[in-house]
Amino acid sequence: MKKYLAELIGTFSLVFLGCGAAVISGISSTGPLGIGLLGISFAFGLTVVVMAYAIGPISGCHINPAITIAMLVAGKIKLNDAVGYIVAQLIGATLASSVLYIVQSGAPVFMMNEWALGSNGWGQGYLGAYNTESAFITEAVMTFLFLLVIFHTTSKWGNSTMAGLAIGLTLILIHLVAIPVTGTSVNPARSFGPAILAGGKALQQLWLFILAPIVGGVLAALTWKGIFEDAVPAR
Amino acid sequence: MKKYLAELIGTFSLVFLGCGAAVISGISSTGPLGIGLLGISFAFGLTVVVMAYAIGPISGCHINPAITIAMLVAGKIKLNDAVGYIVAQLIGATLASSVLYIVQSGAPVFMMNEWALGSNGWGQGYLGAYNTESAFITEAVMTFLFLLVIFHTTSKWGNSTMAGLAIGLTLILIHLVAIPVTGTSVNPARSFGPAILAGGKALQQLWLFILAPIVGGVLAALTWKGIFEDAVPAR
Amino acid sequence: MKKYLAELIGTFSLVFLGCGAAVISGISSTGPLGIGLLGISFAFGLTVVVMAYAIGPISGCHINPAITIAMLVAGKIKLNDAVGYIVAQLIGATLASSVLYIVQSGAPVFMMNEWALGSNGWGQGYLGAYNTESAFITEAVMTFLFLLVIFHTTSKWGNSTMAGLAIGLTLILIHLVAIPVTGTSVNPARSFGPAILAGGKALQQLWLFILAPIVGGVLAALTWKGIFEDAVPAR
Amino acid sequence: MKKYLAELIGTFSLVFLGCGAAVISGISSTGPLGIGLLGISFAFGLTVVVMAYAIGPISGCHINPAITIAMLVAGKIKLNDAVGYIVAQLIGATLASSVLYIVQSGAPVFMMNEWALGSNGWGQGYLGAYNTESAFITEAVMTFLFLLVIFHTTSKWGNSTMAGLAIGLTLILIHLVAIPVTGTSVNPARSFGPAILAGGKALQQLWLFILAPIVGGVLAALTWKGIFEDAVPAR
Repeated sequence: MKKYLAELIGTFSLVFLGCGAAVISGISSTGPLGIGLLGISFAFGLTVVVMAYAIGPISGCHINPAITIAMLVAGKIKLNDAVGYIVAQLIGATLASSVLYIVQSGAPVFMMNEWALGSNGWGQGYLGAYNTESAFITEAVMTFLFLLVIFHTTSKWGNSTMAGLAIGLTLILIHLVAIPVTGTSVNPARSFGPAILAGGKALQQLWLFILAPIVGGVLAALTWKGIFEDAVPAR
Repeated sequence: MKKYLAELIGTFSLVFLGCGAAVISGISSTGPLGIGLLGISFAFGLTVVVMAYAIGPISGCHINPAITIAMLVAGKIKLNDAVGYIVAQLIGATLASSVLYIVQSGAPVFMMNEWALGSNGWGQGYLGAYNTESAFITEAVMTFLFLLVIFHTTSKWGNSTMAGLAIGLTLILIHLVAIPVTGTSVNPARSFGPAILAGGKALQQLWLFILAPIVGGVLAALTWKGIFEDAVPAR
Repeated sequence: MKKYLAELIGTFSLVFLGCGAAVISGISSTGPLGIGLLGISFAFGLTVVVMAYAIGPISGCHINPAITIAMLVAGKIKLNDAVGYIVAQLIGATLASSVLYIVQSGAPVFMMNEWALGSNGWGQGYLGAYNTESAFITEAVMTFLFLLVIFHTTSKWGNSTMAGLAIGLTLILIHLVAIPVTGTSVNPARSFGPAILAGGKALQQLWLFILAPIVGGVLAALTWKGIFEDAVPAR
Repeated sequence: MKKYLAELIGTFSLVFLGCGAAVISGISSTGPLGIGLLGISFAFGLTVVVMAYAIGPISGCHINPAITIAMLVAGKIKLNDAVGYIVAQLIGATLASSVLYIVQSGAPVFMMNEWALGSNGWGQGYLGAYNTESAFITEAVMTFLFLLVIFHTTSKWGNSTMAGLAIGLTLILIHLVAIPVTGTSVNPARSFGPAILAGGKALQQLWLFILAPIVGGVLAALTWKGIFEDAVPAR
């Protein structure tokens, strides 16, 4: 149970700190400049860095169903554990969006709408207004690269001290590119939390943020197993 | 005595560098763009990273009464040491605000008011103008997460090389979210320094920045002791 | 073959994440502030950090023909391997620009032109409009410093845990200075990918981004071999 | 001789990359947002991180006469070596400003004046227009904190893997606060390079950037020797 609770707290942190940074500090109309796309990217990625060193030793710090499913495909987690992880991740994400809703309700002007809690999305009215094909390709390719980094850095020849840092920095990189396209998910739980509370278009578009990251993650697992897992380090 | 002096210097650095960055460089009217909310977040968080590696071996680098009290609850520091730590932290923070006041007095236009030294606060007239409930919840939840990271990363299965980095990055994350809500404290000493010099509303609102971080920190200590301390690492 | 594939994936990542960040997120007209020159610098440099820890153990993570050629001059890679590495790097970069083209085609307003995929360049109409001499000197000096850092940090007295971080941070630094001058290449493959798809002026100016980085890299290799390789550490 | 050459290259890098970032990319009038005070802070600080891991094993990576003098006072370097280091640092800084001058001469509009190469300064017409007292106190206090971090992290109980990172991050922090006050020196060589080429007010104000950092550095050396050097780590 403790590892499920660790996954819950980790996913809570990712959604509360990542979406919270976007919603509360992304744009600042008073005082210093808002954190912008760069700061939002750091918020999501550094949370993974931190959680990798905090809960990593307990649960492996997936905090992302696409990672858990890729690990299942790669034979690195059992099915019943995978189910437990994913349930915990969805609960953590939903709790985070709920607390963020409560905090935002205390702002002088707060209007609950489908993007108010940091939902992912695409198309007209959503940031860069990219189309569905671009959204799907971006989410799938990014999750593919994310999982490849995870498999390599946590392999037997990876540097165990730096793996958590490298993995979290990868999430920063993904956000530095993809926020205008989809808001950046690569994580079905991170999309689930805000969408379940916000409803509307955020919920209608949730399918892509479940499907595309899983496609990318599974392809990475197959690439890892088929090609790189037995590579002998050159040095 | 040396460990108390280390705490004093560490807390001095946190308040001088963190509040100093906010007050001096947050907004730039001449030359390059000011550091904004992102730069202020880095200033507070990176100071903790640096101090963790500098004075950590001497005092443990609490530089925050909420951490010291949580450590007391968790049985990791003795009562008389905890008192000494907190006194040193309050002195260091007050000294920092004093030096910052002297530096700011040399600016061409300097008007001492309740926010001039980087005080925490909330409500009308303070950044995002969030209400008291949002301020309290944010400070308590953030300190809870902060202390959980500290307990996990400094535990027997944490990576001792990366613990200081992970802890400081957590403070960056907390600032990336919470500056518009409260200016971000999670540290009674960091709020005490500016408030004691500035007086007025900063001093009237000081209670929340003492109470909420302690509540969050104590809850984290109980969670750690009750649930995670005996967790057997899965790998 | 696996190390060539690693180089291909690494160079794909560098161009897709680096140029992608510049093109998609550099400037934001809707929502939060774009990532700007600072965010673009982080995108290129952090990709090297991440890839160093991911594929470094397999191929050494050159992902840059100027590095491969400098390593050849320094006697650290065989000629046939160097050829294989460079071919893989060019394929990876071209694939990355192709995927970026597909993603950008799904933006509401997309106009393919010579800079649309993040090409390097200089002179009138290109960012700071620096002249050819400044462009050449900047690229050569920057690649010289980049390779010196690589040779030192991966030497027998370098810290193997931190080498990948230091090398990637160096690429951040180079971008923090040189984007207004040339867009920053120091890597013929990074310039090749966008230029081969964009054609026009980007292709006409490609020669400098092949020649100058190789000149800088070879000079660094000779400096390393002639002066520093046998230096006895002072402590 | 090799360690002097290492100091020369390191100081060259600090001034070329730090001042170069400020002068070339600080403000961007075309394309993406300039790097601002935050990016300039990263440029100086990350150069120290990188150089610490690159040339640290050869020379200790002082690249700053205030550090060399503090090390002399603390008995960690011999007098003749200290002189050699400082001469090398001044040459490296001057070379860096010269190359930066050449690069800037290729910009479409370049006007050589006393601040054109990134000189330090204070008072009317210089960034925040702080007075002399503020400038002196800021430079002295910042160098004091900088050297304390250096002494602690490189001591027998410091973490040798993370020391270079912590020291460079400290320089980021110092810049995050002090750019509006003095442009941030804490390093006589960093001020010397631009001033010697620019002349005028930059040269007239050079005394402060020699004196204040040395005062701060020597005080830190005495504090270290008198108080902390023999501290027994608490854990």
